[in-house]
Parts: sequence; structure tokens; C-alpha cells
Amino acid sequence: MKTIIIGAVAAGAKAAMKLKRLLPESEITIYTQDTHVSYSSCGLPYFIKGDFDDFNYLLVKSPEEFEKDGIKVFLKHRVDKIQPQYNKVLVSDLDGKTSFLDTYDNLIIATGARPYIPHIANMNLKNVFVLRRIEDGINVKDAVKRSKRAVIIGSGYIGMELLEAIASNDVHVDIIEKMPNIMPNMDEDVSNLIKEELESIAQGRFEFHTGENVIEFRGDCDSVKQVVTENGKIIDTDMIVIAAGVVPNVEIAKDAGIKIGVTGAIQVDKFMRTNIKNIYACGDCAEKTMMITETPVYIPLGSYASKEGRCAAINASGQVDGFYGILGSTVTRCFDLTISMTGLTTKKALEIGKNPVSTVITKSDRVGYMPEVDNITLKLIADKSSGQLLGAQAVGSKYADKKINSLTSALTAKMTVSEFLNNDNTYSPPYSTTVDLLYNAALKLKDQIE
Amino acid sequence: MKTIIIGAVAAGAKAAMKLKRLLPESEITIYTQDTHVSYSSCGLPYFIKGDFDDFNYLLVKSPEEFEKDGIKVFLKHRVDKIQPQYNKVLVSDLDGKTSFLDTYDNLIIATGARPYIPHIANMNLKNVFVLRRIEDGINVKDAVKRSKRAVIIGSGYIGMELLEAIASNDVHVDIIEKMPNIMPNMDEDVSNLIKEELESIAQGRFEFHTGENVIEFRGDCDSVKQVVTENGKIIDTDMIVIAAGVVPNVEIAKDAGIKIGVTGAIQVDKFMRTNIKNIYACGDCAEKTMMITETPVYIPLGSYASKEGRCAAINASGQVDGFYGILGSTVTRCFDLTISMTGLTTKKALEIGKNPVSTVITKSDRVGYMPEVDNITLKLIADKSSGQLLGAQAVGSKYADKKINSLTSALTAKMTVSEFLNNDNTYSPPYSTTVDLLYNAALKLKDQIE
Repeated sequence: MKTIIIGAVAAGAKAAMKLKRLLPESEITIYTQDTHVSYSSCGLPYFIKGDFDDFNYLLVKSPEEFEKDGIKVFLKHRVDKIQPQYNKVLVSDLDGKTSFLDTYDNLIIATGARPYIPHIANMNLKNVFVLRRIEDGINVKDAVKRSKRAVIIGSGYIGMELLEAIASNDVHVDIIEKMPNIMPNMDEDVSNLIKEELESIAQGRFEFHTGENVIEFRGDCDSVKQVVTENGKIIDTDMIVIAAGVVPNVEIAKDAGIKIGVTGAIQVDKFMRTNIKNIYACGDCAEKTMMITETPVYIPLGSYASKEGRCAAINASGQVDGFYGILGSTVTRCFDLTISMTGLTTKKALEIGKNPVSTVITKSDRVGYMPEVDNITLKLIADKSSGQLLGAQAVGSKYADKKINSLTSALTAKMTVSEFLNNDNTYSPPYSTTVDLLYNAALKLKDQIE
Repeated sequence: MKTIIIGAVAAGAKAAMKLKRLLPESEITIYTQDTHVSYSSCGLPYFIKGDFDDFNYLLVKSPEEFEKDGIKVFLKHRVDKIQPQYNKVLVSDLDGKTSFLDTYDNLIIATGARPYIPHIANMNLKNVFVLRRIEDGINVKDAVKRSKRAVIIGSGYIGMELLEAIASNDVHVDIIEKMPNIMPNMDEDVSNLIKEELESIAQGRFEFHTGENVIEFRGDCDSVKQVVTENGKIIDTDMIVIAAGVVPNVEIAKDAGIKIGVTGAIQVDKFMRTNIKNIYACGDCAEKTMMITETPVYIPLGSYASKEGRCAAINASGQVDGFYGILGSTVTRCFDLTISMTGLTTKKALEIGKNPVSTVITKSDRVGYMPEVDNITLKLIADKSSGQLLGAQAVGSKYADKKINSLTSALTAKMTVSEFLNNDNTYSPPYSTTVDLLYNAALKLKDQIE
């Protein structure tokens, strides 16, 4: 049996390793356009910041190690076409400029996603970057060393992590967000709180520009020097990182007749199967299911990629394993602020026709008399009619994500607010308050349930 | 309507405040033998350590504040007898040495617990302490300042917190545990790991003596100077703290015909009602229900006391609220080591006839390339036949309790290991590993389920 895997960052790499363990005798070939495999792109902001300076720390497993395990790896090889009727793929060697056909029994598509690039004039100027691959990280880190001012376009979690990374290197950062609020995936009240908290520690090191749409870059000797927004704002800069979200790489799948879901990513079932037999998709190119609503969503995260790659491999091997969906649980650090969420926001819940009620509570993260005590603000959301917990957002101390991770299994179990009130979290003064913030929030929310 | 509340540390104080909010016109009287009300005894180790030096930080609400809210507080008043047939209590004024009767419509027993004192010769020597009330904390803190060597009897979580508190003041600590393992509520493998970890940082500052039963104190000019164990071990010391667990204060309840449960604490239903109408019990004097097994247990913790006090007040007021039980979730800090658990240990699961399987995994608490990365060891336990999660123990970095608190709602929801594998925890490099320790453990445990 031969399996071809397209892409090898998180999902593809995991699929290859798992499949080799399950079927040691089977043939596995990886094709990737990238020059690296199996790396942690989530670590790039910390590499840029200078938490470590050797990018090799980001590499989980080298092509040589894959080869040693009996997995063939073709770097800088692009799959141009999938021919499901012949079980073949057409591959281009990007260096040699040659093409060839290869045959599979199982095909695992793990083509990932690419940065979304908005329409901006003079995009080809120097010192304009995206952040996705190892090379991007090296280039941005290098540019930071040469720069006094940087612009980040987009204030999602990568934008916010880059803000910390770049501003910590004494480079002034202007962060530009098209939407009226930073971190637009979060609810406006939480987003406003994040902005206030960060502005209170900015001390001139960075500035947010919300509701600003970048339409033009202006340069000087080929290098970018200014950013111009639709409202006529002109911001001077030495470098730009575009962090405006990602687009799933689905083109070759679509051309081959593989069904694309409503979110624009490849539609898969819980066994990571596409609509075509023996073709699986996993990772950032694949659609996910939001567990709370059982509806398709596109939230591409490294932790999902790894689990989906594992699941695709098990099913491709002939065994059965299911990946039942996600909650969109995330955590982001921006300086000393932890920003974490899970499940639906109020905004999202309204969009899909739920009747959300919510409560927002701020409380100390530990008992007030303990040293270095800090605050956490929690927004807890439930459905007014059923009482089912829908989601939560937390902002504050480095323990803020603990509150969110206490809620994830409650959301997975589709608990109501009343059921969650029975939850027994740990307590002692260095770790939490006697009455937990989660309990306070659930108690307050319960009063709003019908 | 008049409610008498006996005791006012956590449960009693909470019950009084909640009841006053629900029924502002009702009469509420608190009787307590203590000289303080509404305080955080959990904070005493940190007061002794010197994290703060004013014991007033431990006082949540003063008797004067209660009085201002219309709640009568009688300090140093002991309830000697409950007369359910007359709805009366017999009260002694400990200062005035007088007694009187008072009448109630509702009685809330929140008499708490007292330290368990083992049979040891010469217990009356000076510088022998327990740790329960504010005065105890003041006395121990004072003795630490005068001492070079201290002995702690008992290595439960208070013993371990005292170890950090006292040793951090440059006082050598010998900690003596009767059982073969420290923290005997935990499984032996986890307990051994804790001992190893702590011994590796001891540097002569403290020493564990397990399997040693103290039978005698020896003194010099009335002051304790030596501890003698059954095995003949003699340990020099300037002070002793007995932290050998607690005993619920149930005597007056028992005398009044209130039913005592199998655990020795007052039996209550989920509305905190005793077997006698209009008499409620809550906090450390009351039995709890282990949610996983629906069986009675005696695990007295401040966080339960507060919830139970609230529940007793709501039901006493005529409204309805249930407290459905506990998981025994705890967290303890000993120096830089976090020790946390929830649910059943393997030992406990075997005792009650379950068929437990478990897995122990050690993993870094964050991605390996992040600064100050540390380890967490997790033991995850499930029932072999049903696959139901039974409990977990975690030891390691300051984020170890995050893993336990991710499991608590899974245990509350009676999730199986397979169901828990769908859980979606947050990930980014400063907070966790791409594949979460919980997921690794659940995956490994799943293979052992029938």
C-alpha cells in the first residue's frame, strides 16, 4: 500500500509518522513546496522576539529523520494536479523545473493555508512580509533588527503576538485593524478591554489604529516607507507584516472534484474523508465542526492539525478513529496580558440564531493578600432558553487561560449553567480565590436563564 | 423568623450574609467560641511564611460589619446544647461564665472541625502548636522567629504548606509522617515523586521522616526540645506543629439526635438539611458526597464551606438550592512544586470496588523552546470496564493545577476517556504544548479500557 501526503507542517507530518507506526511496511511519500517539514509556526513570534535565536528549535523532525523512518520526503515539490480517476498526482520539482506522475492507494491532503493578502497598491516593495514559514520568521527577525518603526496589518492573535515580539525589540509598532475593534473574533466589550489594558502599558511603544483600511504602500528606493489608509491616514514605517488571516489551500482539491465546504475549506467527515474514496484532508486546508452547534467552521490551529493528521492516518490505515470537532479554544499572550477564549462569542451566537445571555466579571486571580496578585476578567455566555453554556472569553493575568480550560470539557459535555455550578475547581491562596471566578460568573448567569 | 447560626468562619459567615440578603427583615444570631469571624484559615501558612505580616488581611468581614448588616454576633459564646423539641439552644458566655437559652426558627450548624491530636506523651509542653484559628497562626509565626529547628507532625497539604512557610524563614524542618508515604491521600507513585522532587531542592533545609509514629515529646524548662518516635528516633526541635488532619465538631449535634454519617461528620442531604426539621449543617462539620460515586466522604475544604453555607441559607429562607457534591479537588504549593488532584486515587478506587487503570506521563508545561519551561507529571485514572474518568493527580510546575482544573468538569459530567479525547484545550507556546499532556494521557489510557 502506498500513501501520498501533500504538505508536511503539522497535519501532514503527524499523518506520515502515525501511518508509518501503524503500517511499518507501507510506502509513504510526502510532497511539499516548503523547504522545511514538521515545524512549529506558532513559535515564530517568540523566535522574532528573541526568546531563542536558533530557528532549529522550531523544527520538530527533519526530512532526514523522516527518511530514516522510511518516509520519502520531496522538498520544494508542488503537486499541480490530483487525478482521482487514475489514483495519480502530477508533481513539479520546483528546482529542476520538471514534472512527473506518482500513484497512490491513499492520498492525504494537508496543503495547509496561506496568508490572506488584501488588495494594497505597491505590495511588491521591499520589507513587506507575511508570517507563515520558517523563512518568513527569519526575514521578519532580520528586518526587526534593521528597523525603528514597524506596521502590523491585522490584530488577530498572530498580529497581537507580533506586536509583543517586535515592540520588545525597541521598534515602534503601529498595528492597523480594518474592523472597528482589535481581535475582531472576540466580542466588542472584551476587545475594548484588551485595547484599554494594552494602551495603559504602551508608553509610546505602540499604537492601535482601528477601523482603518490600508490601500497603499509608499516606498523609497524600492523599500516600503509609508502606509496609507482609506481614511487618508499616513503612517511612517521601515517594515510591514501582513497578519490579516489565512486562506485554505484548496485549489488542487477543488480542481479534482473534491467538495469544498461552505467555509471555503475542504469538506471532511469525522474520519477526515473527503467526498472521494481514499482521499483524506486534514489540517489548515480542512473544514472543522464546531461541537456546540455541530456546524462547519474554519478555525485553523496547529493543535487541530496534529489531531486531524493522526485521525486521517488511522482511517487511511484501515482502522477507525473519529475527530468530532472543535470549540475554537485559543490563548494568546500580548506582553503580560493573557487573552483566551472558547466556544461561541455573543456575536457569533446571535449570528447563528441562538439567544445568548452573558455576564462579565472581574476578580483577582488569587486571594488578595498573596504577592503579585493580578486580575482576570471573564465573560461567560449561555443560551437563555436551554441554559446550555455557549462560550467564554477571559482577559488578564497569566492564569486567565486556566478559567477557559476549566470550561472546555463543560462545553464538550454540553453542560448547562446549572450543571456547571456543581463543578469542583481546586483552591488554595496561591492559585485561586476561595470562591472561583467561574462559580461567581455561572451563578450570575443562572439568574438570566429562563 | 429567627435563625441561629453556630460558627462563623466560612460556612457560617456565608450562610449569615446570604440569608440576610434573601430575608432582610429576618433575625439572625451567630454564636461562636472563636474571637474572630469570617476569616481565611487557608491563608495562615502564607502569613507565617511572611508573604504578608498583618493578620487582618485574613479577616474577610469583621463582627462590627456583621452587626452593621443587622446580624448579631456573639464571640466567645459556646452552644452547649441543642434542644430540637423546643427549638432552643443553650449558650455559655465563655468570658462571663454565664449560660442562657435562645430560641430559633431555623438552626444552621457550622461548627467546623478541630485539629486531630494524636496520643503523644507530654503534649502540654510549651511551643507545641496546631494551626486552625487566627491565634494559632500568630503563635506559630511568633515561635518561628524564635526557633532554629521545627518539627511538623503530618504531611497532608497543611503540613506541606507549613514546610514551605517555616523552612523559608531559615528554620530547619523535620516533617514526620506516620504513613509510609508523604501526602498519604495521594497514590504512592505520585507521593514518591513529590518526595523525590522536594528532597532534590532540600539542601539540608528540611527532612522527611515517613513511617514514623510520634509517641513522646521531651522538654526542658517546660519547653519542648525533642520528639521521640515509636521506632526510637529522637529529633531535636524548638517547636512543633501538629498537622495530622481534623475532626468534625459534631458532639452537640449528636447529643441532640442529629444523625451522624458513616464518615463521622453530620449527615446532610443536598439541601444541607439534617434529619431534624429546620436544622441545617454546612462546612467542615458536615459530610459531603463524592460526585463520581455518589457516596459519602469527609473532605473538609474552605471552598465547599462557602458553597454549602450559601446553599443552607437559601433553603433555610424557603427557596430551594442544591449542593450536589464534590470531587475532592485540591491544590497545594510546597516551594516551587505544585501538587494538585481531583476525584479518586487508584487506592481509593480499589477500596470502593472499582477496577481502575491509570497512566503516568511527564511532559513540559509549555513548548520546549520557551524560556523557563518546566515539567508536569500527570496520573490519569479511569475505570477499566466503563471507561469513566475517575480522577487525576498532577505534580510539577506552577501550571500543574491547570491540568486538574481541565478535568474537573469532565469528572462532573461523568465523561469517559473517549469522550474526554474530544476536549479542545487552548494552545500557544507560552501556555502549553501543541499536543496537550491531558490528550497524551487520555490517548494512552484509552488503550487500557476494555
